[in-house]
Amino acid sequence: MSGDSERPDDAGLRQEVADWWATSVSRIEPGVIELRGHPIQELLGAASFTDAIWLMLHGELPAPRQAELLDAALVGCVDHGPHAPSIAVARMTATCGVGLNNAVASGVNAMGDVHGGAGQQCLELYAEILARVDEGVALAAATRETIARRQAHSKYLPGFGHRFHPRDPRRDPHVALVRRAVDDGVVEGRFLAAGLAVEAAIAPVPMNIDGSTAIIYGELGFPAPLARGLFVLARTVGILAHAWEEMQGGRRIKGPIPPGVRPTYRPPTPF
Amino acid sequence: MSGDSERPDDAGLRQEVADWWATSVSRIEPGVIELRGHPIQELLGAASFTDAIWLMLHGELPAPRQAELLDAALVGCVDHGPHAPSIAVARMTATCGVGLNNAVASGVNAMGDVHGGAGQQCLELYAEILARVDEGVALAAATRETIARRQAHSKYLPGFGHRFHPRDPRRDPHVALVRRAVDDGVVEGRFLAAGLAVEAAIAPVPMNIDGSTAIIYGELGFPAPLARGLFVLARTVGILAHAWEEMQGGRRIKGPIPPGVRPTYRPPTPF
Amino acid sequence: MSGDSERPDDAGLRQEVADWWATSVSRIEPGVIELRGHPIQELLGAASFTDAIWLMLHGELPAPRQAELLDAALVGCVDHGPHAPSIAVARMTATCGVGLNNAVASGVNAMGDVHGGAGQQCLELYAEILARVDEGVALAAATRETIARRQAHSKYLPGFGHRFHPRDPRRDPHVALVRRAVDDGVVEGRFLAAGLAVEAAIAPVPMNIDGSTAIIYGELGFPAPLARGLFVLARTVGILAHAWEEMQGGRRIKGPIPPGVRPTYRPPTPF
Amino acid sequence: MSGDSERPDDAGLRQEVADWWATSVSRIEPGVIELRGHPIQELLGAASFTDAIWLMLHGELPAPRQAELLDAALVGCVDHGPHAPSIAVARMTATCGVGLNNAVASGVNAMGDVHGGAGQQCLELYAEILARVDEGVALAAATRETIARRQAHSKYLPGFGHRFHPRDPRRDPHVALVRRAVDDGVVEGRFLAAGLAVEAAIAPVPMNIDGSTAIIYGELGFPAPLARGLFVLARTVGILAHAWEEMQGGRRIKGPIPPGVRPTYRPPTPF
Repeated sequence: MSGDSERPDDAGLRQEVADWWATSVSRIEPGVIELRGHPIQELLGAASFTDAIWLMLHGELPAPRQAELLDAALVGCVDHGPHAPSIAVARMTATCGVGLNNAVASGVNAMGDVHGGAGQQCLELYAEILARVDEGVALAAATRETIARRQAHSKYLPGFGHRFHPRDPRRDPHVALVRRAVDDGVVEGRFLAAGLAVEAAIAPVPMNIDGSTAIIYGELGFPAPLARGLFVLARTVGILAHAWEEMQGGRRIKGPIPPGVRPTYRPPTPF
Repeated sequence: MSGDSERPDDAGLRQEVADWWATSVSRIEPGVIELRGHPIQELLGAASFTDAIWLMLHGELPAPRQAELLDAALVGCVDHGPHAPSIAVARMTATCGVGLNNAVASGVNAMGDVHGGAGQQCLELYAEILARVDEGVALAAATRETIARRQAHSKYLPGFGHRFHPRDPRRDPHVALVRRAVDDGVVEGRFLAAGLAVEAAIAPVPMNIDGSTAIIYGELGFPAPLARGLFVLARTVGILAHAWEEMQGGRRIKGPIPPGVRPTYRPPTPF
Repeated sequence: MSGDSERPDDAGLRQEVADWWATSVSRIEPGVIELRGHPIQELLGAASFTDAIWLMLHGELPAPRQAELLDAALVGCVDHGPHAPSIAVARMTATCGVGLNNAVASGVNAMGDVHGGAGQQCLELYAEILARVDEGVALAAATRETIARRQAHSKYLPGFGHRFHPRDPRRDPHVALVRRAVDDGVVEGRFLAAGLAVEAAIAPVPMNIDGSTAIIYGELGFPAPLARGLFVLARTVGILAHAWEEMQGGRRIKGPIPPGVRPTYRPPTPF
Repeated sequence: MSGDSERPDDAGLRQEVADWWATSVSRIEPGVIELRGHPIQELLGAASFTDAIWLMLHGELPAPRQAELLDAALVGCVDHGPHAPSIAVARMTATCGVGLNNAVASGVNAMGDVHGGAGQQCLELYAEILARVDEGVALAAATRETIARRQAHSKYLPGFGHRFHPRDPRRDPHVALVRRAVDDGVVEGRFLAAGLAVEAAIAPVPMNIDGSTAIIYGELGFPAPLARGLFVLARTVGILAHAWEEMQGGRRIKGPIPPGVRPTYRPPTPF
C-alpha cells in the first residue's frame, strides 16, 4: 500500500469505509437487528413473511388488505413447470454436485429481460398510459395512442397474450381481487383501469399473468423494476421445490433430453 | 443424428421425453396451472405466500398456526446487512450493468455450506439427539453424548454462539413462539426440547438464529436440507432489497473498499 | 401427458427433439468428439488453447500470427486485482462453503454491460466510424462526426480514459503489436487506424485496455459481442487464481470490510 | 456507526482495510499492473494465454514443453456438446434476455463435484497411490490396495470408464504426449505410471478424459483442486461458443424439450 498524500486523513477513513457500505435497509449492531427501523424482536410473531417483504421493499409495514393483494401476486408466479428455463436450469444444475443454493441461483439467473421482465415492462406500459391521462387525455384515447406508438416498433405488448395458455387461469381471480380492493377503498384502481383498457383495445387477446401482476404492483405503489424483483422472489419458491425434488431423485448430470437422443449436428454450409 | 437400433421405438419416445422431465410439483397444461394438485385459481386470494411456500415444499396446505411458525422462521432470516457476503456480493454485482435478477442470483450463490448451511447442520444435530432418545436414552444424556462425539472432531456446534451478537435478539422470540405452539398442541415440542438441551449443556453459549430456526423447521416436519433452502428463500428478500437500494444509488463498478485504499500486495516469500 | 392430435407423429418426434438442440459447434457421438469439424485427437498436441478458442468461436483454426494477437488481447485482461467486483465477488463467495466453480461463476456473473461491456461498445464505436469511411468519408471527419453524435448524449466514450490509470500500461504494447502485424500483412489495420483516430480527436485522453483490445478483436474479425465474451474468458483466469488463493487462506464468510468497521446506517429522512 | 473504544486506531485502520484484501496474485497501482511480479507490458507479446494461465496459478512462467502439456489438457476439455448440463444450461439461459457473461456464469455454476469434479478426485486417487509408493510399496501393489480400499465404499473410480464413449478418443493422444514428455525429461512420469497402473488393474475399463488430464495436471505439479479449476476454465470456451451460437439463433425462453411435449405430471401416490 502506498503513502500518497491526497488520501483522506485517517480520522475520516473509518467514516469513509463505513459509508462505502451505508444502507437504509437495516441496522445491524451487536445484539441489534433492525429492518427499516423495526427491531427484529417486534416483528417475529407479529409480521408475516409477506409483511416483511413489503417492509423491506417499501420501507414500512402494509395494511392487511395490501398484504393480501401482494400475496395474490406472489402466489400466482410461484411456478410454471419444467418448460420454464428458470425451472429446468435449476433441476439440471441440482444433479451436478452443487449445493441447493447454487441450483436455485442458476434458476434465478435465468429470469432476465425476456423470461422475467414482462411484468416490469407491462407496468411501464400502464404508467405511460396513466401519464397521458394525468395530462387530461381520456383513458381510451390514451390507451389507443400508447399502444399505437409502441406497436409502430413491435407488435409485442408485454402482459397480454400467452404462447401457451389460450386464457391464463390467473387473470380472472387477479382482476376480481383488485376490483374488490378498489370497491373497499384499499387501492385507487387506476392501474386496473389501465390494464382493462389495454385488454379492451386489443380484444380478444386476454391479459396474462404479467399483465395482472403489473396491475397489482402498480396499485400497491411498487416501482416497475420491483415487478421483476417480486416475480424473481415468487418464482424462487418453485425453483426451490423443483431443485429439491430433483435432488431427491438422485439422478446425476442430467442433460436436457434423454441420453438416447443425440443433438443434431449441423455442419456449417460452405460459402 | 444416428440410426442405432437399440433406441426405444418411437411410440415410446414421446413418453420417454415427457418422463425425463416428470414432476409431482406442478401440472401445467394449456389453461391449467395446478400446484401440488391445487388449481391456481383456488389458491389466489385464499392462500398467503407463506401457505404457497409450505404447499410447494410439503405437498399440502398448512394450518394457520403452522404457517405462523414458518413466518417467524422466515422473517428472522431476511437480512443481516452488508457484512454478510450474500448481501455485499449482490450489491457489488448490482453496480456492474446486469439485471436485478442476476445480482440476486449471485447473492444466493454465496449461501453455501458455511454461509447458509448451519441451520441444516443444526437440524441434523437435533435429529441425531432425538434418534438416541427414540432408542430410550434420556434427553440430557443423549445430548451430552452427541455433543461429545461431535466435539471430538471440532469444537464448533452449528446453531450455537455467534461471532457478532453476544446474544442473538431472535432467540427469545423464536423460543417463546414455539413454546406457545407446543402448549396449544400445534407442534410436539421434541425439537424445542433438543435445542434447549444443547443450550443447557454448553451454557453460557446461547442459541443463535440457526439453532432457533432449526427448532422451528424440525417441529414443522421439514427435512434438514430444506432448512438451508428456506434460509436461502428468506434471505433472498434482503438480497433483493439491498440490490435494489444499490441500483437506485447509481454507483458503477463498486469495489469492496473505497478506491483510495489499495489492497496490500504481498510478494511471495522466497524459499 | 395428454393425447392431443396435433402433435407430430413419432417418426418425426426423434428428429424434432434432436433438432431442438442442434448445433454447429461440435459433434459428439460414442467414440467421436469433433470441434467445428476437427476430430479432437487431431487437435491434441497440435493446437494450443488459444487455437482452440479461436476455432470454437471463429469456426476454423488461426494462423500463428493471428493467434499471437489473440494471446496479447487475452493476456492483457487476465486480472485487475481485488478492487474489480468480478475478483472481489469471487473471493468472498469462495469463503462461503461452495465449490471453486461456484465462486468463479459469481465472478463471471458480475461482468455485465458496465463492468465487462466497454470492449464490445468500443468495437461498435470503431465499426460505426469505419462504416462512414466505407461510404467515402475521410477517417478524421468520420471520427469527429461519430464522436460528436455520441457525445451529444453522454461525454463517456467506451475504450478511452481510465478512472485509475493515468496511462494504461497495456496501451503501448498492444498498439505496437498490431502495428507490426499490419506491417507484416497479418491484419489490415483499419481498426488500428480508427482507434488512433479517436485517440487523436480527444487528446490527451489515452486509449485504455478496452480500446486496445477492441482494435485487436476488430482486426481479427470477431463480432462485437465476442469482445465481451473474450474479456470474460480472459478474466476467468484471474478470478480462478484469486478464488483459489482465498480458499487456501481458509477465511470463512469474508465480508467486504474488516468486521470492526460497521456499515453506516442511514435512517430514511422524513418527508 | 458507533464509537466503541476497542477499535484499532485510525493509523492502523488503513493498513487493516488494505490487508483485508491482501493478495500475492497481482499488484495494481496507477500505471502499474503486475501479474505474479511480472509487469504486464513485459508479458504482452511474449507470453501466450496458456503461459498466463500457468503464471497466475503456479506463480512463475512455464517452460515451452510444460505449456504444451497444459495446452493438451485444456484443449481436451473445451466442449462435450449440449447433453452436458454446463452447455445446455448456458444455452437456455442465453435465450432469457441476459448478458453473454450471465449465460456463461450459469454454465460454470453447474460444474460441481459430480459434473466437474472427477479430475480432481482422480488426481487425489493417483496421489494416494503414489504416497504408498513413497513409503516403499511397489506400484502394482499400491494400486491394487488403493483401489480395493476405495471400492469397499463404491464401485465408482473417478477417471475411468465413460457412460457415453466406449473408449474416450482423448485417452491415447494424452497418454502419448505425456510419454514423450517423460522421454524428453520434461516431466517425471510418476502420475503417468499411476494412471496406467490403475487402468491395468481394472482392465478392460479404459481411462477417460478425467483420468488423462489428472495425469497431466499431476505431472505439471498442480494441486488437485486446480484440476477442477482448469477443467472449468477449459469448458468455459465451449460454454461461450454455445451460448453465442444460441444467442445468434434468436430463440426466446428456450425450454429443455420442444413445446409440443409436456412434462409428465406424476400425482403423489396416496399413503
